[in-house]
Amino acid sequence: MIGHHPEPDQIKLENVLTALGHPMRLAIVRELAGGGERACGTVLSKEIAKSTLTHHWRVLRDSGVIRQRPSGREHLLSLRREDLEQRFPGLLDSVLAGVESDPESVDRYAP
Amino acid sequence: MIGHHPEPDQIKLENVLTALGHPMRLAIVRELAGGGERACGTVLSKEIAKSTLTHHWRVLRDSGVIRQRPSGREHLLSLRREDLEQRFPGLLDSVLAGVESDPESVDRYAP
Repeated sequence: MIGHHPEPDQIKLENVLTALGHPMRLAIVRELAGGGERACGTVLSKEIAKSTLTHHWRVLRDSGVIRQRPSGREHLLSLRREDLEQRFPGLLDSVLAGVESDPESVDRYAP
Repeated sequence: MIGHHPEPDQIKLENVLTALGHPMRLAIVRELAGGGERACGTVLSKEIAKSTLTHHWRVLRDSGVIRQRPSGREHLLSLRREDLEQRFPGLLDSVLAGVESDPESVDRYAP
């Protein structure tokens, strides 16, 4: 495990909302909502700078939205769906439905 | 009507999430969730500086979360509950439930 991952009961609502309040991070969450772990290089468009990605992984990880796990020279990402659902029931599903209802601002970051 | 109020179909998910991603703004939303219009001076603790309040009203208003209406020398605030529910079903209710499940970070701003 790398970086800071809050325990489920330490996940704060305002941090989750702030983390989700960005189209690139919504794009990441939508992509990871498919389930399982994804190599960090496959989640968004190849055109996004690595430093930008690193920043967004950190915001999502520190808030408790995603989990990062090292694997060789890269890391694997997954959505903390069960932890979020337990902590804030219905929140993630309503956000994902919101993304689906207006995907334009998110689509441009898709891989 | 004062300031910028987005039309319902112009309300953006990332703006709503960013607006809600702050404990003082969650306190405002919780207070307004009781329904109806509230004078701006009655929504949060009297100890919060007016310039701070003005900033947070603007973030909530510009994102589409609240409505501001002038009334004499002050203004009245209300939650755009129906607009938000229509645009992002279930989102506001799950956020309000999240506040109720962990009210500590919000209680300190209560009136």
